[in-house]
Amino acid sequence: MPTVLGQNQYGKAETRVVRVTREGPVHHIRDLNVSIALSGAMDDVHTRGSNAGVLPTDTTKNTVFAFAKEYGIASAEEFAVRLARHFVSQQETIHTARIRVEEYGWDRIPATGGAAHSFVRRGQETRTAQVTYDGDGESWQVLSGLKGLVVMNTTDSEFHGYVKDRYTTLPETRDRILATEVNAFWRHAGRPEGEKPDWDASYERTRGHLLAAFAGTYSLSLQQTLYAMGSRVVDQEPGIDEIRLSLPNKHHFLADLRPFGLDNDNEVYFAADRPYGLIEATVLRDGATAAVPVDLTNLP
Amino acid sequence: MPTVLGQNQYGKAETRVVRVTREGPVHHIRDLNVSIALSGAMDDVHTRGSNAGVLPTDTTKNTVFAFAKEYGIASAEEFAVRLARHFVSQQETIHTARIRVEEYGWDRIPATGGAAHSFVRRGQETRTAQVTYDGDGESWQVLSGLKGLVVMNTTDSEFHGYVKDRYTTLPETRDRILATEVNAFWRHAGRPEGEKPDWDASYERTRGHLLAAFAGTYSLSLQQTLYAMGSRVVDQEPGIDEIRLSLPNKHHFLADLRPFGLDNDNEVYFAADRPYGLIEATVLRDGATAAVPVDLTNLP
Amino acid sequence: MPTVLGQNQYGKAETRVVRVTREGPVHHIRDLNVSIALSGAMDDVHTRGSNAGVLPTDTTKNTVFAFAKEYGIASAEEFAVRLARHFVSQQETIHTARIRVEEYGWDRIPATGGAAHSFVRRGQETRTAQVTYDGDGESWQVLSGLKGLVVMNTTDSEFHGYVKDRYTTLPETRDRILATEVNAFWRHAGRPEGEKPDWDASYERTRGHLLAAFAGTYSLSLQQTLYAMGSRVVDQEPGIDEIRLSLPNKHHFLADLRPFGLDNDNEVYFAADRPYGLIEATVLRDGATAAVPVDLTNLP
Amino acid sequence: MPTVLGQNQYGKAETRVVRVTREGPVHHIRDLNVSIALSGAMDDVHTRGSNAGVLPTDTTKNTVFAFAKEYGIASAEEFAVRLARHFVSQQETIHTARIRVEEYGWDRIPATGGAAHSFVRRGQETRTAQVTYDGDGESWQVLSGLKGLVVMNTTDSEFHGYVKDRYTTLPETRDRILATEVNAFWRHAGRPEGEKPDWDASYERTRGHLLAAFAGTYSLSLQQTLYAMGSRVVDQEPGIDEIRLSLPNKHHFLADLRPFGLDNDNEVYFAADRPYGLIEATVLRDGATAAVPVDLTNLP
Repeated sequence: MPTVLGQNQYGKAETRVVRVTREGPVHHIRDLNVSIALSGAMDDVHTRGSNAGVLPTDTTKNTVFAFAKEYGIASAEEFAVRLARHFVSQQETIHTARIRVEEYGWDRIPATGGAAHSFVRRGQETRTAQVTYDGDGESWQVLSGLKGLVVMNTTDSEFHGYVKDRYTTLPETRDRILATEVNAFWRHAGRPEGEKPDWDASYERTRGHLLAAFAGTYSLSLQQTLYAMGSRVVDQEPGIDEIRLSLPNKHHFLADLRPFGLDNDNEVYFAADRPYGLIEATVLRDGATAAVPVDLTNLP
Repeated sequence: MPTVLGQNQYGKAETRVVRVTREGPVHHIRDLNVSIALSGAMDDVHTRGSNAGVLPTDTTKNTVFAFAKEYGIASAEEFAVRLARHFVSQQETIHTARIRVEEYGWDRIPATGGAAHSFVRRGQETRTAQVTYDGDGESWQVLSGLKGLVVMNTTDSEFHGYVKDRYTTLPETRDRILATEVNAFWRHAGRPEGEKPDWDASYERTRGHLLAAFAGTYSLSLQQTLYAMGSRVVDQEPGIDEIRLSLPNKHHFLADLRPFGLDNDNEVYFAADRPYGLIEATVLRDGATAAVPVDLTNLP
Repeated sequence: MPTVLGQNQYGKAETRVVRVTREGPVHHIRDLNVSIALSGAMDDVHTRGSNAGVLPTDTTKNTVFAFAKEYGIASAEEFAVRLARHFVSQQETIHTARIRVEEYGWDRIPATGGAAHSFVRRGQETRTAQVTYDGDGESWQVLSGLKGLVVMNTTDSEFHGYVKDRYTTLPETRDRILATEVNAFWRHAGRPEGEKPDWDASYERTRGHLLAAFAGTYSLSLQQTLYAMGSRVVDQEPGIDEIRLSLPNKHHFLADLRPFGLDNDNEVYFAADRPYGLIEATVLRDGATAAVPVDLTNLP
Repeated sequence: MPTVLGQNQYGKAETRVVRVTREGPVHHIRDLNVSIALSGAMDDVHTRGSNAGVLPTDTTKNTVFAFAKEYGIASAEEFAVRLARHFVSQQETIHTARIRVEEYGWDRIPATGGAAHSFVRRGQETRTAQVTYDGDGESWQVLSGLKGLVVMNTTDSEFHGYVKDRYTTLPETRDRILATEVNAFWRHAGRPEGEKPDWDASYERTRGHLLAAFAGTYSLSLQQTLYAMGSRVVDQEPGIDEIRLSLPNKHHFLADLRPFGLDNDNEVYFAADRPYGLIEATVLRDGATAAVPVDLTNLP
């Protein structure tokens, strides 16, 4: 046969599981979207349609719900680690598991009476995680991330001194709005076993570093801001060796008010949709090896 | 000619204007999406293609930017009122203006250094407003609203005692998750002139009533919760005579774990996408006349 | 109590039903998204939480699937008529039913072997229908429609002679691209009973009129094109008394190539997203009364 | 400094260019969405904010429009090749260019009068292309693809004989609907220079192979169908060495009508949204080396 099977994977995507934990009248919730991708000895199902080595995607979905009951959801990362270990050890035809999780945040409604079990969806960023594992303890890769965190500085951003060629028309500026949507994945250096990491605390600290670096950087280019954000995370978090950032430049153009006899001293902007600059980079601890897929932060 | 022109309107939709106001180093922002619809003596342009009475939609867009400079954006409602009055008084062929606004909320980033001009998009609900005016002071209609505010009660919700017919299979329940996305418009009784209403404060109070009523209602049906939300607003806010609510029932189904030998005591849920229940109603002050269009809360 | 219940409705939205009919080896499919809204004597459920008069939304969903089996889906309109009649006659607390349907078109894959049961989704417009009924034979309202049909004329469109005010900067043009997304609903004059209308043939003819009028109109404004489209439908289809059109002006701006020493003789355009002109109007048979809700074509 | 810069790229994403070519009264159009990513010697801009080596993203956008005028758009692939070569040869700090293109198809409206310049957007799949180049003639990688092509077989699909574990509840089936959305990228073996490939004809043939293989395969699993689709492309197209397919299993579940006393002999289905199976694989010519990024078909 002139064709062969290359890399392949299968599983159930976007299983939406909500876990409620009751502590007397006080309820806690975790709200996840879990996507599972398994790979291994799968030639037969592709070339002959034999499902003898295939665990159905429906079963992987059921496993998500069952594990949410049996073990709870302490965090997106811990839940993904448990699922990855299960699938790889469960079925000999499955050699590698990759678990992707989106988590939606909820705050308590500060209301009389209902507060202990009443929530409002936070709505800012979506928290993300990706865990891959192939059965070898050295193979664990745990990524945490976020997407959709929209931020803006209304000043302290310049852009000038760039290359001009035949097609350059952009005027230089000493004061512009800098706005972006932060999409990032960072890689934890350690194994997800042994001493238990506090994934939630790590997430909150990392998110805080990203916001602080964005707010605190006097920016000469979005690349500079990106690097400041990434290096602050790696500097401040000893357990994080690498971060990949994808920052669309959400352009805010000064409205031209001169035809109306009005000046516009950085007051009125048009927020454009497309096209947009897209700035992407990995920031690494010196000596670390890059391992986060470069397009991961662009996945839907 | 056997055909005639019926209701018609035109204008520029979705002009995205961001207004920055600088108070020394402290910046303030308003981030709006403005849609303008004008109607009046427009037969000629439809039947003959004569634009002699047509103010271009491009001009209506320019007016948004110019007004943002000249008058600032004190609130979505005030800005919409000003635009509506302008278009109706500006051009004799324009008899009625309807201005729709979406407003995106931003919080300050609590960071050292950058906080005074650094923001993160709030991400919960989108605030909305709609103003219509035809030149007669009696004709003002000012609606405020919100959309996309997702809330959940993990208990204190039952559903039983309903009609059963040949096609009914739903089991009754004494404890379920009740989750919805609040989409609402409320109508202000007074004119938007004279004593200046504090639209922002009114919005925050109304949003608070909606959340408090959702959280505080022991619910036997989503209709009951809706009515509790709407009547609380009308009860507590003397200036609001009417509210229209559209509440999709974001179903959370108990995962069936019995095949795995596990019980599920309201712990693990599947969050479903479609289909969904959709509950919509208007709540009025006794004696008031309904005026909010019933489908308005479903517009994109 | 100082508040009262106004207009209200409830039901299951977006039930996705696919009906396969087998004619020997040749299969036929109908692919619908059905949304049901019921109203009637519903005070008790809103004010007291009593569900005694409430047919669950889950039951209305079940009814969609059961009817697809029992009666088949001859067309979106016929299916909606049947559902509306059922709900109104089924339950005395239900006085009015409104059924909305989206239909997705499929073409056969012209392939050896599989063609009789193999399909590819058409992907142009979504066909729509809305039927309302309150039990009185005079009350039937049957609307057919479409949304998302994107069309473009690359010439034979001008725009000039419009009002200029202080905020007008748009230059006049004698040759521009005219592109829009057709969203329309038209009302059938007759009752949906008695002699059976051929809804599919009526739809295809109406769609054809819309396309032909768009293509064949030398346009001085999008309003003129809209009116030509609507009046052609009413002129040519004796059974249609009214059509509501919502046409976003999908702006294509000439790219300014002068800075690069290039002219642009209507060759290179930038397709903009937002803002966009939005032109909406109803066209009626002379003497008919308008009944299609003006915002219906803007619903998601 | 303890951090270093890893892989990085920047450029303008989603430039929407429409090119009209007039052949007397007959117009031709190309409608593209072009995204540019450049990388090279970019340390200074990240670590020091120096833009001395940075060609602005705005300039890359301008180049798209200028090239559309100067050279026309013969095809997505040819246009991308030209842009990639330009950026790499234009600026010494730019070492590699990656150009991604989405193309929207348009058909002529078969109408009297307007047909020569009147179009309706096709609406099925979006055609895609990705070209990467680093200045070395050996480095050319030209991918063609499509996304969003939705297909369905209403029979000739089984699923059984799979692994059953503790969490398996799925019943086996001998007759089911198989529906998916085809997302694919295929790699052309040759260089994009010298003898000019007919990219449009290649695309149409490849699309035809995918449809024919989907329709003609009696399927025991979606993996088998995927492999049949991929291997048919590689078998039939000597110039294509590799194809990556991502096929979400768009589940159609049989509606359970037994509670209503009705059977359901594969007639009435519920089309589910989430979760969905996701089957992904690369099919290679024997001896070829895989080079298409495995996640590329999942990018938005």
